[in-house]
Amino acid sequence: MSSKLESLQLRYEEAKAKNLDLDMRRGKPGSEQLDLTLPMLDLVTSSDYKTAAGADTRNYGGIDGIPEMKTFFKEFLEVSSEDEVIVGGNSSLNLMHDTVARAMSHGVVGSELPWSKLGKVKFLCPSPGYDRHFSVCQHFGIEMITVDMTPEGPDCDQIEKLVAEDDSIKGIWVVPKYSNPTGITCSEEVVSRLAKMTTAATDFRIFWDNAYSVHHLADEGYQLANIFELCKAANTLDRVFIYGSSSKISFAGSGVAAMAGSKANMDWMKGHLSMSTIGPDKINQVRHMRFFKDFDGLKSHMKKHAEIIKPKFDTVIEVLEAELGGKGVATWTKPNGGYFISLDTNEGCAKRVVELADAVGVKLTGAGATFPYKNDPKDSNIRLAPTFPSIDEIRQAMEVVCLCVELADAEK
Amino acid sequence: MSSKLESLQLRYEEAKAKNLDLDMRRGKPGSEQLDLTLPMLDLVTSSDYKTAAGADTRNYGGIDGIPEMKTFFKEFLEVSSEDEVIVGGNSSLNLMHDTVARAMSHGVVGSELPWSKLGKVKFLCPSPGYDRHFSVCQHFGIEMITVDMTPEGPDCDQIEKLVAEDDSIKGIWVVPKYSNPTGITCSEEVVSRLAKMTTAATDFRIFWDNAYSVHHLADEGYQLANIFELCKAANTLDRVFIYGSSSKISFAGSGVAAMAGSKANMDWMKGHLSMSTIGPDKINQVRHMRFFKDFDGLKSHMKKHAEIIKPKFDTVIEVLEAELGGKGVATWTKPNGGYFISLDTNEGCAKRVVELADAVGVKLTGAGATFPYKNDPKDSNIRLAPTFPSIDEIRQAMEVVCLCVELADAEK
Repeated sequence: MSSKLESLQLRYEEAKAKNLDLDMRRGKPGSEQLDLTLPMLDLVTSSDYKTAAGADTRNYGGIDGIPEMKTFFKEFLEVSSEDEVIVGGNSSLNLMHDTVARAMSHGVVGSELPWSKLGKVKFLCPSPGYDRHFSVCQHFGIEMITVDMTPEGPDCDQIEKLVAEDDSIKGIWVVPKYSNPTGITCSEEVVSRLAKMTTAATDFRIFWDNAYSVHHLADEGYQLANIFELCKAANTLDRVFIYGSSSKISFAGSGVAAMAGSKANMDWMKGHLSMSTIGPDKINQVRHMRFFKDFDGLKSHMKKHAEIIKPKFDTVIEVLEAELGGKGVATWTKPNGGYFISLDTNEGCAKRVVELADAVGVKLTGAGATFPYKNDPKDSNIRLAPTFPSIDEIRQAMEVVCLCVELADAEK
Repeated sequence: MSSKLESLQLRYEEAKAKNLDLDMRRGKPGSEQLDLTLPMLDLVTSSDYKTAAGADTRNYGGIDGIPEMKTFFKEFLEVSSEDEVIVGGNSSLNLMHDTVARAMSHGVVGSELPWSKLGKVKFLCPSPGYDRHFSVCQHFGIEMITVDMTPEGPDCDQIEKLVAEDDSIKGIWVVPKYSNPTGITCSEEVVSRLAKMTTAATDFRIFWDNAYSVHHLADEGYQLANIFELCKAANTLDRVFIYGSSSKISFAGSGVAAMAGSKANMDWMKGHLSMSTIGPDKINQVRHMRFFKDFDGLKSHMKKHAEIIKPKFDTVIEVLEAELGGKGVATWTKPNGGYFISLDTNEGCAKRVVELADAVGVKLTGAGATFPYKNDPKDSNIRLAPTFPSIDEIRQAMEVVCLCVELADAEK
């Protein structure tokens, strides 16, 4: 046994003795972030619960949201009219799931058949990506095709070839800005190619999960090209479903979610929605509007989030650089926004790293979770979520992670 | 032309001259009822938003509800354990729709195949019934078989025969208490027979929409036999899905919905839910628990509702009796709870009554809406919803309705 391996093992035993209990898995806001929104809870009272126009919000109805919230999400999701917006409940995952469910049971605008009646339905899954997107596909028996993530976004050479040839490919998941977990923002070229590309399926859909659109870590943030405008120009406006929510802006469990797209797509969705609900929680929408006032208000609010979480991201990067810099055992992303840092070990080490870390009390997202079928072909990607733990916890956890990366690499 | 018809037509022309604008369609609480719940809006504040046990409610998680709300709905929906309850979002229609959607896409506990993969799926629809139940069936291509409503509930002779013979009959909709629109409460015999009957389908389900379980108009209210216990005794516990909500108790748009059933059924539902959401709005659950405190608190609250709406129901009945009593042109229900009065004209008159009333400014629920495919074979049922308008408006509207019933009858 090499002395290097021995020394790493010794350090690992020392870490074990500390009886740590740390968790870097949770892509959710920390308490300090949630505190920023607390005043919202005082803004609707028994004497004051109406919309800006004075409408009563307590009864049934308003299936696509109160007027000012539709205007708010029109700006947020960057479409041109309130008719292109549906404000939902508290979960954009729910809106995405239900869109897929309805496409399966009934088809979308332009479908000849419900997708479930086709022999096979496939989705492109840029990876590493968001595990819950992949779960939705798996749940509905949709075959997932892994597409590489490049520093510019999903690999469009791969995508264009696949969608042009295979009409059973009906969709693609994209987290276009500060992607989960890589932090990548799609370049204008990528967005444009996605809007313009020729698809064999006439009812192909881009599921544009813009979950981190305003979640900048740097002051200015990255600009993302407007896919809705690019689709409009390319005459492919029905191609894109856009999603967003205030879950990681206001309260993760009690936020407001919305979707946007062509009027034809929204009418399709509203037709389905009218079967399943008599409307969303409008009182909570009033609460949100009073707190944010408008989209500029939301952007100011996000600067306060950045002040809280940027030091946490910096701590992860700092420990990674200090412990692993120049050692050739791993690479990592330095995102300008979002909720995650993506760590890539050398091939065949990620599972072992997660296992080693777990055994000393540091919980990491399961290796493979960021790929379809939980199968990372290179076994190298690990998703780090720095928002929830404290900076001290992050530092301790990351020191263990770095040690485990070195140890797993040395073991091989 | 008979002088009676002439005299009715004269009165109708006089009614027309009044330029009325009245609406008896809306099965939703009136403002005065909603006012009863207003104090709830002050019970969660920026300094006080935690569960009874002190858990933070602002973040993701808790897919089946906060503990005290599960206990609350355990009593409300009359099951025996919190494991038999799922607290959802703001809509029980949403829970029902999603249960059917999941049965179609995946099947339920005990299904050999997803229901959508079977040649045909049929539901029994006791009628007159709730139009949105029927819409869900139609939306998913489920064939609806009309079953008669008797004064004891759905006709079990018909039901037992049908479900014993036809394994494509997978479900039945039942509003067991103060039924929409007849106001009927199922007798113990009916509940027991539904629990015990032999079904050809191994995965038959009763969709027990107990929407009006606590919506008494009389002091004591009717007792409804406990289907969960009866199914348990009959060894058919997976047969029943039970639904309820606070929509017509707290705020119609911002209430809390829940479902209940066997642990196997709830685990099945939670498996699906975990694909589509990271949890319901827990802050709103805290608001509800603080307001009601417990199920007894809710029952007291419902007495206040009854005080407001009973005079409205009484007004409908009073006008019907005064104007149509003994004339042989119509019969009507005198419900002890719920949200509706069901008016039956002689055969072939209901559509004409709705048309006549509409032409003089009194809007009624479309004739046929209470039957599958909006097709009332006798064209006689009209649903009256007295909760939303004022007593004055109800009186004026009902005088027109009665006149239109007489006129339509005389025209024939």
